[in-house]
Amino acid sequence: MAKDKKLVEAITSMDVDFAQWYTDVVKKAELIDYSSVKGCMVIKPAGYAIWENIQKELDRRFKETGVENVYMPMFIPESLLQKEKDHVEGFAPEVAWVTHGGLNPLQERMCVRPTSETLFCDFYANDIQSYRDLPKCYNQWCSVVRWEKETRPFLRSREFLWQEGHTAHATAEEAEERTLQMLHLYADFCEEVLAMPVIRGRKTDKEKFAGAESTYTIEALMHDGKALQSGTSHNFGDGFAKAFGIQYTDKDNKLQYVHQTSWGMTTRLIGAIIMVHGDDSGLVLPPEIAPIQVMVIPIQQHKEGVLEKAAGLKDALQLAGIRVKMDDSEKSPGWKFSEQEMRGIPIRVELGPKDIAAGNCVLVRRDTREKIECSLEDLPSVAAELLKTIQKDMFARAKEHQQSHITDVTSYGEFKDAVEQKPGFIRAMWCGDVECETKIKEDTTATSRCLPLDGQAPISDVCVCCGKPAHKLVYWGKAY
Amino acid sequence: MAKDKKLVEAITSMDVDFAQWYTDVVKKAELIDYSSVKGCMVIKPAGYAIWENIQKELDRRFKETGVENVYMPMFIPESLLQKEKDHVEGFAPEVAWVTHGGLNPLQERMCVRPTSETLFCDFYANDIQSYRDLPKCYNQWCSVVRWEKETRPFLRSREFLWQEGHTAHATAEEAEERTLQMLHLYADFCEEVLAMPVIRGRKTDKEKFAGAESTYTIEALMHDGKALQSGTSHNFGDGFAKAFGIQYTDKDNKLQYVHQTSWGMTTRLIGAIIMVHGDDSGLVLPPEIAPIQVMVIPIQQHKEGVLEKAAGLKDALQLAGIRVKMDDSEKSPGWKFSEQEMRGIPIRVELGPKDIAAGNCVLVRRDTREKIECSLEDLPSVAAELLKTIQKDMFARAKEHQQSHITDVTSYGEFKDAVEQKPGFIRAMWCGDVECETKIKEDTTATSRCLPLDGQAPISDVCVCCGKPAHKLVYWGKAY
Repeated sequence: MAKDKKLVEAITSMDVDFAQWYTDVVKKAELIDYSSVKGCMVIKPAGYAIWENIQKELDRRFKETGVENVYMPMFIPESLLQKEKDHVEGFAPEVAWVTHGGLNPLQERMCVRPTSETLFCDFYANDIQSYRDLPKCYNQWCSVVRWEKETRPFLRSREFLWQEGHTAHATAEEAEERTLQMLHLYADFCEEVLAMPVIRGRKTDKEKFAGAESTYTIEALMHDGKALQSGTSHNFGDGFAKAFGIQYTDKDNKLQYVHQTSWGMTTRLIGAIIMVHGDDSGLVLPPEIAPIQVMVIPIQQHKEGVLEKAAGLKDALQLAGIRVKMDDSEKSPGWKFSEQEMRGIPIRVELGPKDIAAGNCVLVRRDTREKIECSLEDLPSVAAELLKTIQKDMFARAKEHQQSHITDVTSYGEFKDAVEQKPGFIRAMWCGDVECETKIKEDTTATSRCLPLDGQAPISDVCVCCGKPAHKLVYWGKAY
Repeated sequence: MAKDKKLVEAITSMDVDFAQWYTDVVKKAELIDYSSVKGCMVIKPAGYAIWENIQKELDRRFKETGVENVYMPMFIPESLLQKEKDHVEGFAPEVAWVTHGGLNPLQERMCVRPTSETLFCDFYANDIQSYRDLPKCYNQWCSVVRWEKETRPFLRSREFLWQEGHTAHATAEEAEERTLQMLHLYADFCEEVLAMPVIRGRKTDKEKFAGAESTYTIEALMHDGKALQSGTSHNFGDGFAKAFGIQYTDKDNKLQYVHQTSWGMTTRLIGAIIMVHGDDSGLVLPPEIAPIQVMVIPIQQHKEGVLEKAAGLKDALQLAGIRVKMDDSEKSPGWKFSEQEMRGIPIRVELGPKDIAAGNCVLVRRDTREKIECSLEDLPSVAAELLKTIQKDMFARAKEHQQSHITDVTSYGEFKDAVEQKPGFIRAMWCGDVECETKIKEDTTATSRCLPLDGQAPISDVCVCCGKPAHKLVYWGKAY
């Protein structure tokens, strides 16, 4: 038992040091490892399996809306990157440059894609001719590179995995509709699958994507009260189309520019799952996304019949469509419990000789540690039902945490106090002036997260910073 | 109908110019497009959907053998690439070098991975401690870069998509077993799913992978009689383990080196599908891998009830688990037929007012153009059965083509004649001397494809090149 204790103690408590707790969970739950490549991570099987489940479910939802997958080159020639002025200014300082192919210097250097707007635009300029070719709703799953100075696993790394959707439409209205459609798809995915409530909103001009007309965002709240931008959807209007010459002939045979969108979600979602649901025993995975939903752990497994019975339970759960494994390693049960908890597996099933004699087994919820006794025959249906309950309860708890960490302020003094003393979102009115936005960031390190989309009522009529008339309600917060 | 004719005429006949036919199919079936990034391709939806099906089925088969997916960084620091002597010599001349991150030169340049042995070894050196950590059976899906001078879509491009498996084992025997297990998995996949017969064999030392102790290969035969290496599996012995210091403590507490393997398949498989099954009307996809298996094409679709009935057939086919679409665009039926043929969709279902009146529809096989009448009620079961038949027939035809294009030769004169006049594999004895292998390549451009694994009997007792005693039967051929 000394060993078991050590395993659990090896995690820093989140109240003592949240950043260290996060790093401990990421390592101890075997999600990632650091690599010899500075700022890049190795995603290990337990981490990658979560990403596979995210991919599978997002991809399914994308395809239901008519999205098709493609693959673009990973390199962008410098001249292509420079075609859209705002875009190149936003990204050029943080790209990795390829200058040599084999033994020879390249005629023109290329960057590794930080994002692929320029490649899709270059493609669309040739591929789109007529209104019959529209809309184009393409997506790709790939990795991108941004040369960050400070990195943290999943949250900010020099290379990360993501999907990037890029669409082209005949009209501005259609582009705006697709931009919002994808934002809501992202939000629904976070809430339904990751059990993670989000604020849906629009970014201020200062915070929007380089080259976008408008950027929409979903913002989630972490355990420590910091916000995490969890997905963005951009409307480019016809800005890129004009820079790249993407035109189509409409039904009246007139040349028109297309209107474009892009939208992306990344492996940073795994960081969000950790920081929304985790606890001092490690990861807590929502059942919908958990690669293993139930771990069967035999007790006194060398006693006759125990392993066979446990394997039978595993098979029965599998047959019921549950992702299940059995831990029949030579470790002690306590050690196995700690590992299952660290890895965030939603339910463990304990089964020993006494349970078998009584025709029962014990289910233990990872999220609440509640123990539930159940007959062996009923296990598959009880477990299936319990997985649903856990998913629902995890969302409710996260929602309650989010709601109880929103502070309304109407004066600058209150604003500064809230940033210091009340971790979470701050709701405050803003005049729309970028100078106020910049001042707030400089004074408090809180940034404007978004202008909420659901028409929340104003809470005063003056800007919290300058006192001038203000109509815009903004969510502010410290952010990852 | 003039338009329809043009679409078909736009493909070069494969007998006139096979290379041009290939390029035409790749473009006309909308599998890829060229990009502004020299030597890199854009994989379009019709091409990427084939890759997704390849991924899904291969990944399923991998996981059945205990493989887990991970993700390694895309960059390799130069010092890491240089750790294994043969490996760096094989790859350094064809890698892309990153020299700058943002505005600053890097302290050490890095290449974009051409393959990830070095990264996996670097990881395993830290991750593997004890015999309890073995075996490690990891795989990743990613893109890799090799700075090729001459490129062709799918077959040879500067960036391509692939999977690369990397395993570490306690013993040499286990490593060899895994190497062969994956080779047979690849071969079975090609034959069962891609309807593509392959020769399973071992590469000569000259042709093996840089750093490998032995390389196994599957070799497929294209329509034009050229071979295509379609998958490889390498046994590294403990060479990389010694270069990278990957050691574990065994049960007797002694330090041992691990034994490693790697194995990969790439988007070049799509090129193989085209060149094994295609014809002068375009692509012909095996049903198992076809993104769309059945295309329903309504005739006189503006006549009352036609579209509704066609949509009903589509729904019924979908319900039966068939991947089906309906083409209700405003194009002429002839144009739609040509498009469906070009895209290689295995079956089209034609349905017009006369068919409806008779309670029938017509199925047309893409591979043989055979027409089959069937009652509307029976369509789902008839189509499902026909898909199986097409899959089986396509394999049988490809197998017949392969078998009829193998020529046995016992003298050097016969060898040279066969290379000139009999496209396909040449079976000939070889003494094992690399000088003969090199001479044959220089004289004829044919290369040793493999030493077959299935114990084929010798066809003479002397080397076809030098006349010295020879025990090795080799498949030779021109190759992509």
